[in-house]
Amino acid sequence: MASFSISPSSRIRQTACHEKVVALGVKGFTVYNHMLLPTYFESVEADYDHLVKYVQLWDVSCERQVKITGPDALRLVEYMTPRDISKCKLGQCMYAPLVDENGGIVNDPIILKITEDEYWLSIADSDVLLWAKGLAHGLGLNVEITEPEIYPLAVQGPLSNDLMASVFGDWVYDLKFFYYKEFELEGMKFIIARSGWSKQGGFEIYLNGKEDANRVWDIIWEAGKVHNIRPGCPNLVERIESGLLSYGNDMTLMNNPFEVNLGKYCQLDKAADYISRKALKAVEANGVTQHMQYMILENEEGIRVQPNSDPLAVTQNGVQVGSVRSSAYSIKYQASLAFTIIDAKADLSGNFEVVDQAGTHFKGIISNEKWEMPA
Amino acid sequence: MASFSISPSSRIRQTACHEKVVALGVKGFTVYNHMLLPTYFESVEADYDHLVKYVQLWDVSCERQVKITGPDALRLVEYMTPRDISKCKLGQCMYAPLVDENGGIVNDPIILKITEDEYWLSIADSDVLLWAKGLAHGLGLNVEITEPEIYPLAVQGPLSNDLMASVFGDWVYDLKFFYYKEFELEGMKFIIARSGWSKQGGFEIYLNGKEDANRVWDIIWEAGKVHNIRPGCPNLVERIESGLLSYGNDMTLMNNPFEVNLGKYCQLDKAADYISRKALKAVEANGVTQHMQYMILENEEGIRVQPNSDPLAVTQNGVQVGSVRSSAYSIKYQASLAFTIIDAKADLSGNFEVVDQAGTHFKGIISNEKWEMPA
Repeated sequence: MASFSISPSSRIRQTACHEKVVALGVKGFTVYNHMLLPTYFESVEADYDHLVKYVQLWDVSCERQVKITGPDALRLVEYMTPRDISKCKLGQCMYAPLVDENGGIVNDPIILKITEDEYWLSIADSDVLLWAKGLAHGLGLNVEITEPEIYPLAVQGPLSNDLMASVFGDWVYDLKFFYYKEFELEGMKFIIARSGWSKQGGFEIYLNGKEDANRVWDIIWEAGKVHNIRPGCPNLVERIESGLLSYGNDMTLMNNPFEVNLGKYCQLDKAADYISRKALKAVEANGVTQHMQYMILENEEGIRVQPNSDPLAVTQNGVQVGSVRSSAYSIKYQASLAFTIIDAKADLSGNFEVVDQAGTHFKGIISNEKWEMPA
Repeated sequence: MASFSISPSSRIRQTACHEKVVALGVKGFTVYNHMLLPTYFESVEADYDHLVKYVQLWDVSCERQVKITGPDALRLVEYMTPRDISKCKLGQCMYAPLVDENGGIVNDPIILKITEDEYWLSIADSDVLLWAKGLAHGLGLNVEITEPEIYPLAVQGPLSNDLMASVFGDWVYDLKFFYYKEFELEGMKFIIARSGWSKQGGFEIYLNGKEDANRVWDIIWEAGKVHNIRPGCPNLVERIESGLLSYGNDMTLMNNPFEVNLGKYCQLDKAADYISRKALKAVEANGVTQHMQYMILENEEGIRVQPNSDPLAVTQNGVQVGSVRSSAYSIKYQASLAFTIIDAKADLSGNFEVVDQAGTHFKGIISNEKWEMPA
């Protein structure tokens, strides 16, 4: 797709630090949870190069929180996911697919256990608030469900530990992956988690209100100068190289978790009642009809694949057997990479063909090297 | 907000006729129901000028349908809205706010009654699919809820009657406002409704699948040449002049229908059970604490208001009393117009002040001339 401008409207909300990222030269946006999300500053490639070497500050306000409180909070959270949330400790975060009655993925949030009767779902791009509210009302659960004024910032990159320690103290070195701590600074109270949508190491900071987000941005920015800090955002190349799935791109309500390598987050025999048990048990018993595959796309003239909008067809021997969900040229692997969903009957050892929107033909080969998965 | 590019991804779906609107020179997009929606072609002003004189063809695929079928279909639809849907006839469309248990607006679709046990909700920008599915599951209703492969096109403008009649027959002249008819053309079956998101007159055509949408686009385009047809899209200036509210801009889950002039769509004593009865009865009894006002914004140097992103503060005597939800310079009224939501205690006869994102100061005056409402 060529470049088109995005028109302003209140419906597409600005992030907490919108003015800062604009002043710092953001060039592209996407829309995520009805909010702007920066997509690149200098270029996706230059941003990538910096991200894997130094440290970046990301305004990820669009990671909206669905806050569930009340005596039935755990019951509702458990009901929405096949993952066993009863094992989640205070201070812990759990990545968990939310799955509907047909086995379809509704979202794939990180769940934060705040107290025994308060959970935050840090969501991907779909209105989980409405899904949770609908279920809770229909089931008569005693919960309150809101989207609080929480605006996350992310600090990502190999120098993130040193930067965060310089601002918040050496305890951050010991913070375990997917655990968080509550912290107080200059009268502001917020949560710091070791997490984030890259594999370069880093943290997510859940700020209360736009003002706090801007104050903490300034503090981190100032301290980051010695670490060559830059503004950043989730990076398409880095996340594909790292095997990080994106809801809406790589999986939708039409996919079940087993199809997209999320089976390990499904404890189908967990004690708590959950909506997708019957559907997922059937998938487990019958096997999947399609599955995610990591594909390398080759072109004889060396043309690189572009990021795709609508899914591109994947064919084998002239027959469509799947689609490309996300694609990018990998700097690390010096190859065009794609997340694809392929018919389970297709011959994975054979060749595939993809034609991108520019009409360029690629030969597709399934990669055995599994890009890693989130934890 | 300055102009920024929107980055491609499968998550932001392309419309049925995306390639056509690109070839025809679309310049801006927004994202609506996780799908691209054109925002202008030549310019918002030039598009407006053409729309009010001739006829335009709009690719509004982003008007996604939530299809509810089954013995409990009417029961679920009734449950979601305070409007009395029992009165809806076969072949009729009804504009209806969907309202939650707190009285907050979830969406404001047009509801189409297809059969006695099939309704389509032609939705604004929020995941009504998840809301409806959550409620139905929790309440144990016997319904199936899907997003079918329906891709609407709109034909809008004063010449739309003649154009549509030339393609589909003279019966379209007699089609009543907010009624539809099923039609068959060259083996394609689809629905034609007299409706659309402008006040210039027109139709919405609900096509089955992207291929049919492209075929019908071509047929209408060819027939429209004698009527000076152009590609178009919902026009910010026209819709504000016409008093057409936009969900997410002018109202959100934080607003009840009475606050935003949608009281006439609330039959609080309707026979069917509905989720918002208690909350809306309380609003009716206690009155609203804020209400939508149409405001004219004046600037001494004659500077025109720009479309706003995040809501701008409206102050009176230095105190914030509300916010601007949508704004544009009206060509018809030669004035800067804004939809605002104002504290019910504010003095509507007094002056207000608005400072836009460029820092321009405007004096705000409530307009007594009510721009019309949808039917």
